[in-house]
Amino acid sequence: MADQLAHPFAGDPVFDLHVGGKTEIRSTVPLVGRDDLSLAYTPGVARVCEAIAEDPSMTRHYTWVPNTVAVVTDGTAVLGLGDIGPAAAMPVMEGKAVLFKQFGGVDAIPICLDTTDVEEIIETVVRLAPSFGGVNLEDISAPRCFEIESRLKALLDIPVFHDDQHGTAVVALAALKNALRLTDRDPATTRVVVQGAGAAGVAVARILLEAGIPDIAVLDRQGVLNSERSDLTPVKRALAVDTADVHDRRGSLADVMAGADVYIGVSGGTVPEEIVASMAPDAIVFGLANPHPEVHPEVAHRYARVVATGRSDFPNQINNVLAFPGIFRGAIDVHATAITEGMKVAAADALAALVGGELAEDHVVPSPFDERVGPAVSAAVAEAARRDGVARA
Amino acid sequence: MADQLAHPFAGDPVFDLHVGGKTEIRSTVPLVGRDDLSLAYTPGVARVCEAIAEDPSMTRHYTWVPNTVAVVTDGTAVLGLGDIGPAAAMPVMEGKAVLFKQFGGVDAIPICLDTTDVEEIIETVVRLAPSFGGVNLEDISAPRCFEIESRLKALLDIPVFHDDQHGTAVVALAALKNALRLTDRDPATTRVVVQGAGAAGVAVARILLEAGIPDIAVLDRQGVLNSERSDLTPVKRALAVDTADVHDRRGSLADVMAGADVYIGVSGGTVPEEIVASMAPDAIVFGLANPHPEVHPEVAHRYARVVATGRSDFPNQINNVLAFPGIFRGAIDVHATAITEGMKVAAADALAALVGGELAEDHVVPSPFDERVGPAVSAAVAEAARRDGVARA
Repeated sequence: MADQLAHPFAGDPVFDLHVGGKTEIRSTVPLVGRDDLSLAYTPGVARVCEAIAEDPSMTRHYTWVPNTVAVVTDGTAVLGLGDIGPAAAMPVMEGKAVLFKQFGGVDAIPICLDTTDVEEIIETVVRLAPSFGGVNLEDISAPRCFEIESRLKALLDIPVFHDDQHGTAVVALAALKNALRLTDRDPATTRVVVQGAGAAGVAVARILLEAGIPDIAVLDRQGVLNSERSDLTPVKRALAVDTADVHDRRGSLADVMAGADVYIGVSGGTVPEEIVASMAPDAIVFGLANPHPEVHPEVAHRYARVVATGRSDFPNQINNVLAFPGIFRGAIDVHATAITEGMKVAAADALAALVGGELAEDHVVPSPFDERVGPAVSAAVAEAARRDGVARA
Repeated sequence: MADQLAHPFAGDPVFDLHVGGKTEIRSTVPLVGRDDLSLAYTPGVARVCEAIAEDPSMTRHYTWVPNTVAVVTDGTAVLGLGDIGPAAAMPVMEGKAVLFKQFGGVDAIPICLDTTDVEEIIETVVRLAPSFGGVNLEDISAPRCFEIESRLKALLDIPVFHDDQHGTAVVALAALKNALRLTDRDPATTRVVVQGAGAAGVAVARILLEAGIPDIAVLDRQGVLNSERSDLTPVKRALAVDTADVHDRRGSLADVMAGADVYIGVSGGTVPEEIVASMAPDAIVFGLANPHPEVHPEVAHRYARVVATGRSDFPNQINNVLAFPGIFRGAIDVHATAITEGMKVAAADALAALVGGELAEDHVVPSPFDERVGPAVSAAVAEAARRDGVARA
């Protein structure tokens, strides 16, 4: 308390909650006398070590490794705050660990790296791999995050998952499926605008395509991604071919928003009100940037029928917390070697289905505190892992 | 339980205790509704991140980092088992984490590295540093451990401590001080044999010298380290000059044990009974290898007055657990930038003093379950840190 009171933020509920951090290590075994010490530590522990040395798969039964996930960041794209570095990223990573445990029973360890070099991040995570059952990449800026994830997936036989891409994409797909149902739209003819071609934007567009929603215009700061542009990275160029090129969408945000059915913002920018006003009737507006949505819900509600944000203090929170704990839980439960596209779509379908008969404008995704979420997502993911041939149990 | 019963070791108390591992991550903040989520995660957490980005010292107050210690190994020298690799080392590292928490209130994270390259270990730990308040190096083989520790100490401004060296040395010094008192010996004329010139042997010899015990013969497998030998590493050569050279001790174990007052084994070998029998009357025999002491206590008791081992199932356990939790606790409490020689000797003195009037042949060190140990060691270490100018609070 002395520490707390001496600080400029003392008395602020957010800061007071953070004093001393939000996570701790706990022992799960008794340790009250010498006998306990002989079992949990020397000399007993030596026999467990020898058994694992003999048969490495024993790690799964006699260590905490299979249930752990490293939450790895370099602090380059933290929330909507940008490149604030590894130390300043820690409160988000700790928060992630809190959510992993609460909603998935997963032991997550925050790892904030003092390097932003792609090769160094990859080799560091590979060296850490014997300590963890999975890797959740977090808040690493695009386009570096794409290469880091795809190379680590190839190098490791444990799940590697960049949550800013796929967690967001899974929950956005779940919410969009329900919003389309609510507004009687056909996915095949729905016009979607995705603003932002970073980690989340690329993954959202990709999962929508996977789910049978083909008319998508993805924008970066220079406008709609189409293959006539000469300034695109390989990732953006490939996406342009699969999205805007198909329906020949081009130009600026104002151009593609006129008459659009769905806006999904993952850019951290701001959409002028007159552009929101130009959308189709019964529009769907998801402003997912944290902490500042691209379209404030008050503004969005003037024109749209279904409005969602990434924030916990508005209805329809499209928050990754609905996805990542259950996705990792399901993957861990079957000792999966990877998290496949099929497992992600299965997670989205499970989430959308949970809303069921309660579907309403202000309820297109379940609440994070709906206790059915974790079990439903993990069961769907485990089943998909078996279907996709990546389960080891 | 299904998992457990399916395994060959099911029913064995050591293995049953290890099912699912021995540690977990726990949240220290409430998370029962959206308001909690807004404080511990988005949008609230963003303000804590911004505060740390502005002033990195805020990390100490608003994250778990200052209270965490990475327990880092490459699995090359695990207990007395040798190079069993990072996966098989995990049960020891988890056990360490259990002890860190129970006896020091420190959150320790097991990090088992998939590399044995000195440069790679060093650069990996440096990259991990923003995530941790300290680094406990563990079970890394000599002589690599000396370079890894000394270089990391130079590179980082958080405590770096190779426990196999200094934890063992601190507790051995505490026990030896009390054993010398019990047998009325003068440290200045006591003849000591240290068998083993690896991590623990070098550190034990160094701390004895520091504590005013100058007549030491240190042996590796080729015999007594003295500077006439041409096969010594730089670390061993420097030690030879400061130990055996001074009193011209030379030859084999049998040569130096004849008439010796003290034997300290940290080699993992075995001492023939006739050699133990050749020691001075009222000899002191510490066989510290785990799980197999160099001299079994039954054999040692035939000739020696004070007998100690590293095992928890015999009296006089010279176990690092008496030292490392309190040493890190004390260092963390004052946000120390390093663990100095003065802090280690202060820890040994505090341990020795705790035995006090209860000093006896079978009680030269306190029990790990003596609740005074952690507080006494941490207070002495914190005070020494201030004295040595490495405290930041």
